[in-house]
Amino acid sequence: MTTEPTRPKSSGPEARAPRGFVDRRARDLAAERAILDAVSAVYERYGFERLETGAFEYADALGKFLPDADRPNEGVFALQDDDEQWMALRYDLTAPLARFAAQNWETLAKPFRRYAYGPVWRNEKPGPGRFREFVQCDADTVGSARPEADAEIIAMAADGLLAAGLPAGTAVLKINNRKLLNGLMTAAGVADEGQKLAVLRAVDKLDRLGPDGVHLLLGEGRLDESGAFTKGAGLGAQAAERVLAFTAAAAGGDRAATLATLAGVIGGSAEGDEGLAELAAIDAALTGLGVGADRAAFDPSVVRGLEYYTGAVFEAELLLPTIDEKGQAVRFGSVGGGGRYDDLVARFTGERTPATGFSFGVSRLAAALRAAGRDLTAQARGPVVVIAFDQTRMADYFAVAGELRAAGIAAEVYLGASGMKAQMKYADRRLSPAAVIVGEDELAAGTVTLKDLDLGRELSSKVTDNAAWREQRPGQQTIPRGELVAAVRTILEA
Amino acid sequence: MTTEPTRPKSSGPEARAPRGFVDRRARDLAAERAILDAVSAVYERYGFERLETGAFEYADALGKFLPDADRPNEGVFALQDDDEQWMALRYDLTAPLARFAAQNWETLAKPFRRYAYGPVWRNEKPGPGRFREFVQCDADTVGSARPEADAEIIAMAADGLLAAGLPAGTAVLKINNRKLLNGLMTAAGVADEGQKLAVLRAVDKLDRLGPDGVHLLLGEGRLDESGAFTKGAGLGAQAAERVLAFTAAAAGGDRAATLATLAGVIGGSAEGDEGLAELAAIDAALTGLGVGADRAAFDPSVVRGLEYYTGAVFEAELLLPTIDEKGQAVRFGSVGGGGRYDDLVARFTGERTPATGFSFGVSRLAAALRAAGRDLTAQARGPVVVIAFDQTRMADYFAVAGELRAAGIAAEVYLGASGMKAQMKYADRRLSPAAVIVGEDELAAGTVTLKDLDLGRELSSKVTDNAAWREQRPGQQTIPRGELVAAVRTILEA
Repeated sequence: MTTEPTRPKSSGPEARAPRGFVDRRARDLAAERAILDAVSAVYERYGFERLETGAFEYADALGKFLPDADRPNEGVFALQDDDEQWMALRYDLTAPLARFAAQNWETLAKPFRRYAYGPVWRNEKPGPGRFREFVQCDADTVGSARPEADAEIIAMAADGLLAAGLPAGTAVLKINNRKLLNGLMTAAGVADEGQKLAVLRAVDKLDRLGPDGVHLLLGEGRLDESGAFTKGAGLGAQAAERVLAFTAAAAGGDRAATLATLAGVIGGSAEGDEGLAELAAIDAALTGLGVGADRAAFDPSVVRGLEYYTGAVFEAELLLPTIDEKGQAVRFGSVGGGGRYDDLVARFTGERTPATGFSFGVSRLAAALRAAGRDLTAQARGPVVVIAFDQTRMADYFAVAGELRAAGIAAEVYLGASGMKAQMKYADRRLSPAAVIVGEDELAAGTVTLKDLDLGRELSSKVTDNAAWREQRPGQQTIPRGELVAAVRTILEA
Repeated sequence: MTTEPTRPKSSGPEARAPRGFVDRRARDLAAERAILDAVSAVYERYGFERLETGAFEYADALGKFLPDADRPNEGVFALQDDDEQWMALRYDLTAPLARFAAQNWETLAKPFRRYAYGPVWRNEKPGPGRFREFVQCDADTVGSARPEADAEIIAMAADGLLAAGLPAGTAVLKINNRKLLNGLMTAAGVADEGQKLAVLRAVDKLDRLGPDGVHLLLGEGRLDESGAFTKGAGLGAQAAERVLAFTAAAAGGDRAATLATLAGVIGGSAEGDEGLAELAAIDAALTGLGVGADRAAFDPSVVRGLEYYTGAVFEAELLLPTIDEKGQAVRFGSVGGGGRYDDLVARFTGERTPATGFSFGVSRLAAALRAAGRDLTAQARGPVVVIAFDQTRMADYFAVAGELRAAGIAAEVYLGASGMKAQMKYADRRLSPAAVIVGEDELAAGTVTLKDLDLGRELSSKVTDNAAWREQRPGQQTIPRGELVAAVRTILEA
């Protein structure tokens, strides 16, 4: 802050945050902190250690979004350090993990299991609910090719969602394997990468279009309601049926039943069989961990990032129907996802290193919790306010506030310059449970007057007569000073 | 991550973090989290609500460090948004508070009390222990001119340090008032701003140079041991004596005694009397809150940021002697500070708004806790490791790990590709308390073999004969499976 002379209003800069950056207040932050505390405890119980890297990485270490000279800010927030090297704010938590793992590979105990949370930054066009800064939470195992490492990540993700507050049965981890999808392509006679992508894109629309719509997209193409035509993948009818049978293999079955159905559909391609064996190992490990199909199921329709994953892929889906802004019931959909990717440190060291992980957006999970009616901070309340109306009695007011705090109750003395009425209004706006009045009468008698503001708020919605209101003074009681803490507790517990 | 083909070693970018940015591992992060949790709980009990603003502010909102066209990165990390506006990462938590308060002033319940923590970024030359990103924690009351608001911040800071783990008597809040210093200047006949700054700089060196050295700097000047001459403030002997008497007023006295001494030294300047009255109100409020001079004392030698503060200033000082890198006993010094500043939103709205706050660096406080022998995370240990040597038995291993986790014990199945010996080494490097072996014999007998790695580490420092070591297998026991959790608990509690 500068100490410039006072200037007339509006001559200074406008007070506003940059686009896509949001100020978060106590209630949202408490919800986020509760999620991170609960999930961290679970992840640590699984033997994952926390890691926090700096906000910046050198741009060449970020990989995908390497800025070029003309567009240094494409996708990331990048700037040149004073030695002319480009550096950029991390856009996810995986790229910094890759850099850290490559840098420390020789000295790390391997497999290296870490979790991390913190803001990531995307230099993209902001929009409603779309920010340029948001908090992610990731857990990854680096250096294990075993499918059991995938299973453990899946079980841990499921336990994390449960610990964060999503009740059993409200979320499920849906698991697929990229090798199965590749085996399916072989079995369906898919010719090239272009056709493969078209097939995967069609499968990815199953939720939205249903089997019939996807069948059209797998074949010649589909005319939508607006009259627009989407060219299809060009599969024959038999191949399209096979793809649809594959995606439907999960319906209603437990994991073993789904695997048996899948084995029939994919036939005996080498990659498909490898994928099936990996899923069987994942099933066995999940069963050993006590995670049933109600919490982690195989679902061959799960696709996820087409270029990135090399083996198991998984997605955490909220099963509760939720209501959108227009009052329509909608699927909430994914709250997080992940999978196996084997190029983590290869771009630094040249060595392929197997890795698997799960990631979720913290505000997205907070929204899911609210949708599930599990917003534990909904009742967040302000501090008890000790009313201050005599400048010479401030030390007495502070003693009252101190006594409440010592009992673990949030409390404050009003420190503004306004009178009684404005102080009560202040307490109301802070959502204070109670106001404490310590006037001369009370000090002389060794009492305090306690106003139950919760009760007051409730009653004020019923009393319409101002005179009657003043007469009754609902929720107000004068009690011995020694009973203050107990009386406030009674209000808090009401 | 890209999916580039595997490249020969060293052809990729070098894996390194940008200068001045540091990777923090589990132990440091746990210490920091414990501090933030403890301090947050205290601050919320005082009625302060948490606020988190975005990482970026528009450069014109940051004030002091406005980038110019030639040096847009001077002091801050700044870049141009796609609409050409300059924005910069926050360099402290006060500038974003100023912007937020100005932006929302009409709708905030006032006084507005918020705390915040998070990284701040300084684009400065990094050095040993000097980073370009570090975590600060601030609490401020905006909109109260009362000295009691200062007192509350001081009491809260003292309670925060105590809750974070600094034992009573190891830290003290030292309080001064800028108005007292101004009154002193009047009493000492200081002529202009230049002389005033020279006097304050001399006083600020009291800890390092002692009264005699400061006396020289208050007068003509001082020749240091290297032969360099520092020009003094040019006060006469009597004025210099008065300044030194002022700075010595705290010696050994309680707050009321210090005030009485100060009143004698400063004489009757209007500003000095105002400062004395404010300190008297702070004393009364602190007394009401039960905070004695052992935790919050008046110390007229405290100066702090010369341009910034307008009233009370305070500094939290660690009283414990600590040891520097050379093994010398040194004063640890300040762990945080703050004061009253009245220009928070003026640069936006033109209206002067009184504010007061306290700020500390989280890693600095963590270092103070270590210096005080209160590093609660020093004993941080890894998970119990379940040894995996039979691919077909993985589900059994997972069931053991799941059982331990369900009992709240961190546990993992080894998921690398190495043999028994490497697995034990892995467990040792993770600082695991124990390893669990579930072989064919154990599975058949319904037992597990438990290796106490803590005991093993201790004993291995005493046993020098390898053969004897293998014979004794210290710390190894085979127990019924049902006793596993209890046996691990015994090891953890040892």
